[in-house]
Amino acid sequence: MEIDYKNVKVIGFDADDTLWVNETYFRDAEMEFSKLMAPYETANTIDQELFKKEIENLSLYGYGIKGFVLSMVESALELSNNSIGNNVIEAILNIGKDMLNKPVDLLEGVQEVLDTLSQDYRLIVVTKGDLLDQERKLEKSGLLHYFHHIEVVSDKQEANYSKLLNHLDIKPSEFLMIGNSLKSDILPLINIKARAIHVPFHTTWIHEQVIANENDNKKYKTVTSLLDVLTILGKNPKD
Amino acid sequence: MEIDYKNVKVIGFDADDTLWVNETYFRDAEMEFSKLMAPYETANTIDQELFKKEIENLSLYGYGIKGFVLSMVESALELSNNSIGNNVIEAILNIGKDMLNKPVDLLEGVQEVLDTLSQDYRLIVVTKGDLLDQERKLEKSGLLHYFHHIEVVSDKQEANYSKLLNHLDIKPSEFLMIGNSLKSDILPLINIKARAIHVPFHTTWIHEQVIANENDNKKYKTVTSLLDVLTILGKNPKD
Repeated sequence: MEIDYKNVKVIGFDADDTLWVNETYFRDAEMEFSKLMAPYETANTIDQELFKKEIENLSLYGYGIKGFVLSMVESALELSNNSIGNNVIEAILNIGKDMLNKPVDLLEGVQEVLDTLSQDYRLIVVTKGDLLDQERKLEKSGLLHYFHHIEVVSDKQEANYSKLLNHLDIKPSEFLMIGNSLKSDILPLINIKARAIHVPFHTTWIHEQVIANENDNKKYKTVTSLLDVLTILGKNPKD
Repeated sequence: MEIDYKNVKVIGFDADDTLWVNETYFRDAEMEFSKLMAPYETANTIDQELFKKEIENLSLYGYGIKGFVLSMVESALELSNNSIGNNVIEAILNIGKDMLNKPVDLLEGVQEVLDTLSQDYRLIVVTKGDLLDQERKLEKSGLLHYFHHIEVVSDKQEANYSKLLNHLDIKPSEFLMIGNSLKSDILPLINIKARAIHVPFHTTWIHEQVIANENDNKKYKTVTSLLDVLTILGKNPKD
């Protein structure tokens, strides 16, 4: 199926793991947590229980580092049967603070792609993370000026994107979303007839994993580097 | 000074303590925390240390319940000199969950005011809280349909509001902000030449407290009930 991008006016970028490394830091944090809890359970049980706790708390805490830290503290109490030392609680709080203070590690081609696309399109960031955290990363990375604004959504389902298009006052065919999560950045957009380009990241949180079926696959393109987006949209990198 | 509201197109409402009770729940949570920590310190020291911790963490955690809970956990470790029981940590996490699950207690006149103003203006919510938490409250309260969308800002300073007006594509004189915090909802708007109406709430977090000076006072109105906004804008409640 030929996909038509000629009406696109606004391009939405997912931020974490599309513009910069993020999931890797969560995986590292989980490994640190696992080490802290090693006296109480096997690594496998610790991983599973933390994941269960995160999903259990997701409707209450939403996405982002702070909810993740609260779930780690709660898991630590449960996994240790309420016998965890204060030093471990402190270590968990510090894991969270370290995550919030991590340097911004841009993915390949980000600067070049934003520099080129910002000349012809309105660029926005669409995130379900924490606004403060995302703003901080955009500022640290020097990318803030490429974006018209940051859209914070509580989730990335069809209804959230429909609300977003309504808010932007544009038609689905005028919106292109670029992101690493099939479940959050691609499929909901295809379902509401918007455009989407999938740029997978090497690590994906299990909660974000879905299996693409062949039908879906015809309605969006998957590329291995953000730079390929320029080719798809027929743009040459700015000299 | 006569204030001119005739160009106003968009009205931004602060949510917590403007549309519904919020600060009261934080004060209650602080009292619960104080009781939990009573074996270690005087109530006064506990209050002060928690407040200091919140301010210390504000740039990292931002506003909202999750950051508040993380600061309570950290304070508990420090106030007890790392000898706090796991049951207290658990109790603190539960204070946070209870806060997130609190019923929405609308303030006087909210329904009537939104019902009337939504006929002539585009209404939005402007919040520095947690999007998920605010969406949940709007849904629970049945007020969601009055609002075009929710604007999440990482802080409520002049620069944040300037960005917001740019994003909404309107002039300062076309924007009216209504809220309970002089520091966050009123003074920054006056400084960028937008309109603002102050509806004080009986409790204000000390971090939000500023002293109004006489000059400021001439550029915005203060009312005792949200219903007075209708009079100021020359609207009669819908029959």
